[in-house]
Amino acid sequence: MSKVIISGVGLIGGSIALKIKQQKLFDEVVGIARPGGTNLKSFVKSGMLNRVSMFMEEEIRDADLVILASPVAQIEQTFQVITPHLGSKTLITDVGSTKKNIMMSAKKGLKNKHHQFVGSHPIAGSEKHGPGSAQIDLFLKKNIIVTPFAKTPQKNINTIKKFWQAMGGKTTVLDAKTHDQIFSTVSHLPHMLAFGLVNQILRDKNKKLMLNFAASGFRDFSRIAASSPEVWRDICITNRSSLITDLKKFQCQIDKMISLIEKNDEKKLLNYLNDASKTRQEWSE
Amino acid sequence: MSKVIISGVGLIGGSIALKIKQQKLFDEVVGIARPGGTNLKSFVKSGMLNRVSMFMEEEIRDADLVILASPVAQIEQTFQVITPHLGSKTLITDVGSTKKNIMMSAKKGLKNKHHQFVGSHPIAGSEKHGPGSAQIDLFLKKNIIVTPFAKTPQKNINTIKKFWQAMGGKTTVLDAKTHDQIFSTVSHLPHMLAFGLVNQILRDKNKKLMLNFAASGFRDFSRIAASSPEVWRDICITNRSSLITDLKKFQCQIDKMISLIEKNDEKKLLNYLNDASKTRQEWSE
Repeated sequence: MSKVIISGVGLIGGSIALKIKQQKLFDEVVGIARPGGTNLKSFVKSGMLNRVSMFMEEEIRDADLVILASPVAQIEQTFQVITPHLGSKTLITDVGSTKKNIMMSAKKGLKNKHHQFVGSHPIAGSEKHGPGSAQIDLFLKKNIIVTPFAKTPQKNINTIKKFWQAMGGKTTVLDAKTHDQIFSTVSHLPHMLAFGLVNQILRDKNKKLMLNFAASGFRDFSRIAASSPEVWRDICITNRSSLITDLKKFQCQIDKMISLIEKNDEKKLLNYLNDASKTRQEWSE
Repeated sequence: MSKVIISGVGLIGGSIALKIKQQKLFDEVVGIARPGGTNLKSFVKSGMLNRVSMFMEEEIRDADLVILASPVAQIEQTFQVITPHLGSKTLITDVGSTKKNIMMSAKKGLKNKHHQFVGSHPIAGSEKHGPGSAQIDLFLKKNIIVTPFAKTPQKNINTIKKFWQAMGGKTTVLDAKTHDQIFSTVSHLPHMLAFGLVNQILRDKNKKLMLNFAASGFRDFSRIAASSPEVWRDICITNRSSLITDLKKFQCQIDKMISLIEKNDEKKLLNYLNDASKTRQEWSE
C-alpha cells in the first residue's frame, strides 16, 4: 500500500491532496495536524485526506513520499523529528518559496540521509490561504522548480520531477542559490514593494480619500500585498541576503527616477519608461 | 445644433465619443487630428465621429463643449491657440491625470476666460492605447474627479458634472492640489515602482530566467509597466513635486524594511506586513 504524508495542509498542501486523490497517485493521503492549527476533520469527511495524524514520527516509517508544506520556519524542526524514523525508500520534498535555507536545514537535520530530500518550489499560489481555498488544478501548466544537492542521485530527482508532472506542472532543475536570487527579484521584491506602498498610504493624512480613489492600477499592483504576513515574514528572513541586495538595487532605480524627473530630462526619462514598457509588453505576448 | 469637439482621439477621447453617440448628447462630434497623429478617417466611417478637422481655432467658434484629451504637454499650446476664438458659452474640460499644471496653463492661456475651463480626471483607463481600444462603457461606475478654480461659477461646474454622469461616471469635486497629492501616491507612485522593477530585471544577468519564471504576482504587479511611456513621462514632469516627495517617502519605507530584515526583527516585520495585508484585504471588500 502506497502512502503520502502532507505536513501543513493549507492552500498548497490541500491542492496537492486533491490532485493526488484525483490521479490516484497513492493509496493513502495522511495530513499532519499541528496543535492550534486548522482543524482538518472536515477535509477527511470531504475525501481530500484519508486520515489526520498528530505524529509525524510514527507516520513516516512506511511513507513513500513526505511533502513539507508548512511555513518555512517549522520545517527545520520537522527534519530533526523525523530523521531517526526515516526509512531508506522514503523521499521528502517541500513547497517553500526559498530554497538555500531549506537545503541547509535538510543537510543539517537529515545528516547522511539528506539525499532523500529534493527541494521543490511550485510557482503557483494565490493571495488566499487555508485548505478551504485549495484548488485541484492549482499546479496545472505552472512552473515547478526542483532543487537537488550537487550529488543527489538522479533517481531521486526523477521521482520528484514525475510527482510534480502528475500534479500538472512543468519542472525545471536549478541549484538553490540561483533559484533564490531569481525569485528574490521577480517575486519577493515586488511583494515587498506592494507591502511598502500600502504602508505608505495608510500612514498618510489623506488615507481615506486615497483608498476611495484607488483604481484598477492600484488593485492589480497591490493584490499581492494581501498575501499572508506569516509566509512573507518567513520569506524575508530565509532569503534575507538576496532580498536586501534587491531592495538596495531598487533604491538605486528610485534614485535614477528622481534624478531624471528633477533634471527634467524628458528624453532619458522616456527611454527609461520605454525600456520597461517594451519588456513588459513582450513578456505578456 | 449642438457640437462637441474632442482634441486627442485616443483610448479616452474615443471612448467619450462612443458614449456621446450612444447617449445622443450632441448633434455633432468633431475629432481634431494632429499632423502625424493617428489617421481618424476610419472612425468617421464607423460612426464614432461626425467629422475630422485639423483646425481647432475654426471649430471652436460654435462649439458647446471642448474635451482636451491629448497628452498633457500639448494642452498648454491648445489654450493659447483657442483663446481668441472662444465664445462665451463654450465650456472646456480635459481628461489629464494631473491637475495643478493644467489649471495653471488654463489660467495663463485662457486669461479672463479661464472660468470656462473646469478640469476633469476620469479614473478609468487601460494599459492599451489608441482609439481602436475605445470602449463605450469605459467610464461606467468609475470615479471622475472634477477640479474647478476657487471662483468658478457653480453653473459651469454642474454642466461638467452632468456631462460625466451622462458618460456613466460618479463625480467628486476636489481642489487641484489635493487631487495631485492623492493621485501621486495612489497611482503615479505604483506606476513608477512597476517601471522600476522591470528596469531592474532587464539589467540583470539572469534576465531571461527571471522573465521565464515570473508568475501571476509579477504579472499583476507589473501590468501597469506596459502603460504608454509618453503619457507617463508627461505625468512625471507635470506632477513632479508630489511624485518626488512620494518616491523619497517610499525610499524610507524600503529603509524600514531593510532595517527590520537585517535586524531579524520578526515581530515588527510581521506587524508591518500585517498592516498592509489587512488594509489591502479590507479595501477589496
